[in-house]
Amino acid sequence: MQKNRIEAFSDGVLAIIITIMVLELKVPHGVELAALEPLLPVFLSYLLSFLYVGIYWNNHHHMFHSTQRVNGAILWANLHLLFWLSLFPFTTGWMGENHLAALPTAVYGFVLLMAAVAYYILQRTIISEQGPHSLLASAIGSDWKGKLSPVVYFGAMMVAFVSPLIAIGLYTLVALLWLVPDRRIERVLAGHGNNRHPKD
Amino acid sequence: MQKNRIEAFSDGVLAIIITIMVLELKVPHGVELAALEPLLPVFLSYLLSFLYVGIYWNNHHHMFHSTQRVNGAILWANLHLLFWLSLFPFTTGWMGENHLAALPTAVYGFVLLMAAVAYYILQRTIISEQGPHSLLASAIGSDWKGKLSPVVYFGAMMVAFVSPLIAIGLYTLVALLWLVPDRRIERVLAGHGNNRHPKD
Amino acid sequence: MQKNRIEAFSDGVLAIIITIMVLELKVPHGVELAALEPLLPVFLSYLLSFLYVGIYWNNHHHMFHSTQRVNGAILWANLHLLFWLSLFPFTTGWMGENHLAALPTAVYGFVLLMAAVAYYILQRTIISEQGPHSLLASAIGSDWKGKLSPVVYFGAMMVAFVSPLIAIGLYTLVALLWLVPDRRIERVLAGHGNNRHPKD
Amino acid sequence: MQKNRIEAFSDGVLAIIITIMVLELKVPHGVELAALEPLLPVFLSYLLSFLYVGIYWNNHHHMFHSTQRVNGAILWANLHLLFWLSLFPFTTGWMGENHLAALPTAVYGFVLLMAAVAYYILQRTIISEQGPHSLLASAIGSDWKGKLSPVVYFGAMMVAFVSPLIAIGLYTLVALLWLVPDRRIERVLAGHGNNRHPKD
Repeated sequence: MQKNRIEAFSDGVLAIIITIMVLELKVPHGVELAALEPLLPVFLSYLLSFLYVGIYWNNHHHMFHSTQRVNGAILWANLHLLFWLSLFPFTTGWMGENHLAALPTAVYGFVLLMAAVAYYILQRTIISEQGPHSLLASAIGSDWKGKLSPVVYFGAMMVAFVSPLIAIGLYTLVALLWLVPDRRIERVLAGHGNNRHPKD
Repeated sequence: MQKNRIEAFSDGVLAIIITIMVLELKVPHGVELAALEPLLPVFLSYLLSFLYVGIYWNNHHHMFHSTQRVNGAILWANLHLLFWLSLFPFTTGWMGENHLAALPTAVYGFVLLMAAVAYYILQRTIISEQGPHSLLASAIGSDWKGKLSPVVYFGAMMVAFVSPLIAIGLYTLVALLWLVPDRRIERVLAGHGNNRHPKD
Repeated sequence: MQKNRIEAFSDGVLAIIITIMVLELKVPHGVELAALEPLLPVFLSYLLSFLYVGIYWNNHHHMFHSTQRVNGAILWANLHLLFWLSLFPFTTGWMGENHLAALPTAVYGFVLLMAAVAYYILQRTIISEQGPHSLLASAIGSDWKGKLSPVVYFGAMMVAFVSPLIAIGLYTLVALLWLVPDRRIERVLAGHGNNRHPKD
Repeated sequence: MQKNRIEAFSDGVLAIIITIMVLELKVPHGVELAALEPLLPVFLSYLLSFLYVGIYWNNHHHMFHSTQRVNGAILWANLHLLFWLSLFPFTTGWMGENHLAALPTAVYGFVLLMAAVAYYILQRTIISEQGPHSLLASAIGSDWKGKLSPVVYFGAMMVAFVSPLIAIGLYTLVALLWLVPDRRIERVLAGHGNNRHPKD
């Protein structure tokens, strides 16, 4: 089964999610600077979610780059990830429009957590399809970022009920951690490429 | 005629349908857990429709994978399928926002039924283009799932006027039935591939 | 310059236009059959516009299939066509929600007319890039459909102020005329392919 | 790393941005010509932004055409550009719905300015990846348009507080300046192609 259609479909869904989120940034009625003020938390939520979708797209890109074949299980693990990502516009809007209230901030973290779990499942599904000497498995190595993130999301969800601002700070911290694209995969793939095309 | 553009266009439309449905999940005004309660049926309807669009995308993927050429009839049979799928956001929203009332639940089933019929027509159109020894025809075999589904949808539509919940249970049952991707096609294609590239 | 990105971008825009139109089909508040009644003209307008976008996608597909190279002029002629097509959701919604009043029906026809003109300009731009022995030029032949359509749109626009229903009938008639995909191009391309690969 | 997925994702986002902007053109309630009057500034804002997204797509197309490899830095520089472009629907709607008031017109220019800066950063990132004899660097030459545009945007932002109409005139002027696609890159690429395939 070819992987290009699963990539194209995922690109489409991610492109729409990232763009639809901006619709929550409703055009204000006033024309003064004060009219923009209530939009600030919505804008900041949008910025954070844009970063997250960008990170997912980047890592998805790298992950499928090191994937040769896809099967039915991978298709569904991928759709499962897209499902949780598709809830980003909702949680982003709810958190942003309520000036970072406790429950919406916790729910935002819950969807981040479920997306991280879905990403992990997708990664395991691809590795199990690739077999014992999986290119992806050697590329991700210890995957400490992938293991740490859900723990922080869960902690931040709890913290949100005490201080939503600290929770959002934690979500932002994890995003910054991921902003650096997965150089491990890039390195291993580069090494793999070099081995195959030594004169390249 | 190349099949890649019909795949790309279908991927685009399906990606938008699956993502636009989430817009019916309107950001609530409250910030308490109670504010999410009225959204539960909308969320469950979204989940069911997400599953259905995922199933259609999966099967569409498999079907076109075993298709070499497309002609004008296939283009229009494909657009006909996309038309019925494009009504999913409407019927999903109507069913979800009315706490699963009778008529919206029946109309939801009607659109499922028409999409199933459109899928069947598309399948027959491709098979007739492929000729007597059609790869797709041998791949789908008896196609009992494809034949059973419309019957169940029609039955569930009737049941909806008595008990919408049972109707939704039936829609969910059919979805679960299809969740397993069409291994028949995968198997036949794999066999076909082996025959052509015996050393692969 | 490669043509695949212009195709991908056009596919994306057309896929979004065709799907966004369905958002005008607003989820009704009631759950009785009567709640669907006011949606009927909106639904029929959507159906007609879906047909038109499908026709444009089909013909666009055929046109670019017979195009080898694209230049800056073709890029802009294509964007010009997409601009007029992007107004379809607006005119469809306005016509549908006003039970086919005179002015919205005429404006619907005006946008159809401008899209037809833009399509014609794009066709001429491609032919002029292809030079004297243009494959596309020989494929479209007399192009009587392309020449007749704008005339009918213009006539129907005028008629709309007397009888919107007749105008819509004329729009539908032209759509049905185009529903048959451009077999001329298919035939010429097939011939062209046969000449180049006689043993294919 | 392949460049086709970054192109596909950017095409998707740009296609959605260009189409979502039309949603600000809200279907009016009246059916008289007067009902369209308040939509005129919204329509003109849409037209200007459509032009700008078209220009960005065109130049993005040319830029990546002269790019062989992408790395993590290019992925993020591209996402940064897409972020600012994703704010076009918001600023277009705000400017259009307020009959070109001062602040919305200045904010429109600010987002244009930031998108231009982001485009410049992306260009520099690609050139630095390509190394000293960069194909893109020789293609863009002095890049006077790229250097002049941000200056004009900044000036127009200031002017907007005195006369929004003159500011919009300046935005339009820059758009017309860019409407001519980047023939420099086309020429250099053509020359490059000729050098590599002298018999082509």
